[in-house]
Amino acid sequence: MKQLILLLSIVITCQLSAQTDTENLKKIYDNSLTNGMSYQWLDHLSNQIGGRLSGSLNAEIAVQYTKEQFETLGLDKVWLQPVMVPRWIRGAPEFAYIETSPGKTTSVNICALGGSIATPTGGVKANLIEVETYKDLEALGETKIKGKIVFINRPMQANLINTFEAYGGCSSERYNGAKEAAKYGALAVIVRSLNLRLDDYPHTGSMSYGDLPNSQRIPSAAISTNDAELLSGMIALNKDLKFYFSQNCKQLADVQSYNVIGEITGSEFPNEVIVVGGHLDSWDLGDGSHDDGAGVVQSMDVLRLLKESGIRPKRTIRAVLFMNEENGLRGGKKYAEVAKKKGENHIFALESDSGGFTPRGFSFQSSEAMLAKVQSWRSLFKPYLIHYFEAGYSGADIGPLKNDNIVLAGLRPDSQRYFDHHHAANDTFEHVNKRELELGAASMTALIYLIDKYGTDTITNDTELKD
Amino acid sequence: MKQLILLLSIVITCQLSAQTDTENLKKIYDNSLTNGMSYQWLDHLSNQIGGRLSGSLNAEIAVQYTKEQFETLGLDKVWLQPVMVPRWIRGAPEFAYIETSPGKTTSVNICALGGSIATPTGGVKANLIEVETYKDLEALGETKIKGKIVFINRPMQANLINTFEAYGGCSSERYNGAKEAAKYGALAVIVRSLNLRLDDYPHTGSMSYGDLPNSQRIPSAAISTNDAELLSGMIALNKDLKFYFSQNCKQLADVQSYNVIGEITGSEFPNEVIVVGGHLDSWDLGDGSHDDGAGVVQSMDVLRLLKESGIRPKRTIRAVLFMNEENGLRGGKKYAEVAKKKGENHIFALESDSGGFTPRGFSFQSSEAMLAKVQSWRSLFKPYLIHYFEAGYSGADIGPLKNDNIVLAGLRPDSQRYFDHHHAANDTFEHVNKRELELGAASMTALIYLIDKYGTDTITNDTELKD
Repeated sequence: MKQLILLLSIVITCQLSAQTDTENLKKIYDNSLTNGMSYQWLDHLSNQIGGRLSGSLNAEIAVQYTKEQFETLGLDKVWLQPVMVPRWIRGAPEFAYIETSPGKTTSVNICALGGSIATPTGGVKANLIEVETYKDLEALGETKIKGKIVFINRPMQANLINTFEAYGGCSSERYNGAKEAAKYGALAVIVRSLNLRLDDYPHTGSMSYGDLPNSQRIPSAAISTNDAELLSGMIALNKDLKFYFSQNCKQLADVQSYNVIGEITGSEFPNEVIVVGGHLDSWDLGDGSHDDGAGVVQSMDVLRLLKESGIRPKRTIRAVLFMNEENGLRGGKKYAEVAKKKGENHIFALESDSGGFTPRGFSFQSSEAMLAKVQSWRSLFKPYLIHYFEAGYSGADIGPLKNDNIVLAGLRPDSQRYFDHHHAANDTFEHVNKRELELGAASMTALIYLIDKYGTDTITNDTELKD
Repeated sequence: MKQLILLLSIVITCQLSAQTDTENLKKIYDNSLTNGMSYQWLDHLSNQIGGRLSGSLNAEIAVQYTKEQFETLGLDKVWLQPVMVPRWIRGAPEFAYIETSPGKTTSVNICALGGSIATPTGGVKANLIEVETYKDLEALGETKIKGKIVFINRPMQANLINTFEAYGGCSSERYNGAKEAAKYGALAVIVRSLNLRLDDYPHTGSMSYGDLPNSQRIPSAAISTNDAELLSGMIALNKDLKFYFSQNCKQLADVQSYNVIGEITGSEFPNEVIVVGGHLDSWDLGDGSHDDGAGVVQSMDVLRLLKESGIRPKRTIRAVLFMNEENGLRGGKKYAEVAKKKGENHIFALESDSGGFTPRGFSFQSSEAMLAKVQSWRSLFKPYLIHYFEAGYSGADIGPLKNDNIVLAGLRPDSQRYFDHHHAANDTFEHVNKRELELGAASMTALIYLIDKYGTDTITNDTELKD
């Protein structure tokens, strides 16, 4: 009889708990879709502030703005975490053309890659050598490369369903192209933009010279996909054509900046920290709405949505707006360094840095047991069409927090449109749909709510019954 | 021993079959994403032809164009199916303003609803009465309504995840508003546009006078959501303000048009017909890219993708481009009527009429057993993030085919952005993402392939082993 009562009480607790979870998720989603702040905040970040390259005035205005917004939310703590960041500036606009014969030129759209040096005064003009990947350079060797501009024309693979895989397959061309081409005496490198679509926008992004001495560094720029196609076609017709470009970018000394942090302190386990975040910096060409204004405002709204939905977390929930993800990751590294120094116990971190598109689910860097635990919540997410709970990448900023105790996760929005806008002048507010952004914020809040409630402990099987 | 061999051969057949299915789905998706025609066809339909209202010259040009395109595909049959369609024309552009006092006016964005009559020459100007639904009219009665313009201001419900549910909750206001308001002596009806977003686009759509005699009919128009908010705010401040609008639309006599049909005749069961379709007509304000150019070009590409992927269907597959879904459904009715008259055995029909957005899955009007059969294919679709296989609505054009033998299905793309564009001037090509459109075409082809291979028979449990 005693056992029966125990069993019954377990069953009832289970059902009540599930009911409450269902109700709380509904509150969270309703609140985000009818009363969310993410879109309004993004409007300000994008249209009132704009592109937020690390070390720029805009980045500092964004630090102040988001801190002020946190302060309106009645959080337990809001603070700035100092971090020194690199400062690269684009300078006067780039200019480029294809020259088929002296005086006969066609202008093309390029932009300097982040971290690149400028061209010499007056620009650089030379014959081109086209390759599909920087790995082709070794076989060509100095005789074919010296004195030329290397054109790396590797299209993203269209048949990959997850566009981030297609990006991963090509991003090393952008990152390593100049470093490798310089070894064989190239004058400069032009890389096809990492864009699945054919259009006129050049897409910037970080590149690296590795340990190449200053004297051997060469300028590197991205060309729009339309112009990459044009250029490739023109080279096929005329191997002797010349390419000209000038760019005026510069790496300046590091400057002071900040991660912006807002916290709801845990009511029962304040020393167990759950992080949700995105990065506050962006590239300079657009206004950084998708990358990563979306992740910033969604993370901010997680704290607000928890409060608005009457949920008092047991554990400490921190929204961290990381600085300098794009060209240094200094904010992410600093946050992890300080957490370690303070001996803070971070049990979970979630990043949103894949655009403000309809959320499909989450990917996890965790044990299989933890993944199974999250997957057991699947039915709670079904009404919101959140279906994807798989092992996979989390996010760059939270990466440095990795250790044996923490579970890392990434929001996985629909990826089809992301690289149309990524790092380009058309990463702008009008390309963000309010509802898609709000669904993302709600989904993140729902996951954080469940993680807070049920923890990341997978040793016992009855974690669902703790409450 | 014999039984063991039988069992083994079943297991092997099963695995081979699944392998082939996996491979064929990969071929279909690869082909659509790297070599698809849907986007190119849509570009032509949208940018070279434009809006395709039934009975318009554009609609007839679209009939010829899609027939010609079918003819390039090496199909077994291509034909036009004659159908008489209504012809409603918008005439000179609408004009509207709010008048707070004589001479003090604010212009607002409206458009006539499809099927509405014109305003009297010189327009109509009167006081307004605002209601949230036409059902409020009865309580107000003739004393409060007579001589006024009724303003139905019902916002779509933002917290519904499926935006079609939110649309369903409001569309009867647009459809019935004028008919109901006329009963109480209203001069005209203005309806809030069915758009979840706040913007300046008025959204048209069909309305009906039911059996109201001509003499009692009143003009009806939609107002943009921004202007609906403005108007409502101004009414709250000043109940005596006046609203003016003029529109010049007209219902003309029916004209001849066509459904456009392409067919791959079945190699084994030519008398079992599978239909895939969308509607070729559209409203006139935009170019009808999402509604339903997308469904048209996807349906066309289903036939091409089957052929390109080397799949020879056992059953007859027909792509049907229906005419006049928007304001009459004549094409859908005619197709079903002819099919019935000919005694054709339609076993399955799939419609794409929810926009060219990332496909999430399908909804089915079928027996539970058939739904379970489709759900057993879920793992085949997992690599393509197609996860939604549920009972639900199929499509307007294929609805008239309904009988006890046929399974009806609808493609379910992500619905978040659809009503930003639906029936408005911004339903245009640049709002369609190539990859999203192509993923939809591939998903439709994959489903048609599986239905063709395994049939819709659910009596036996071994349908998977037939091949």
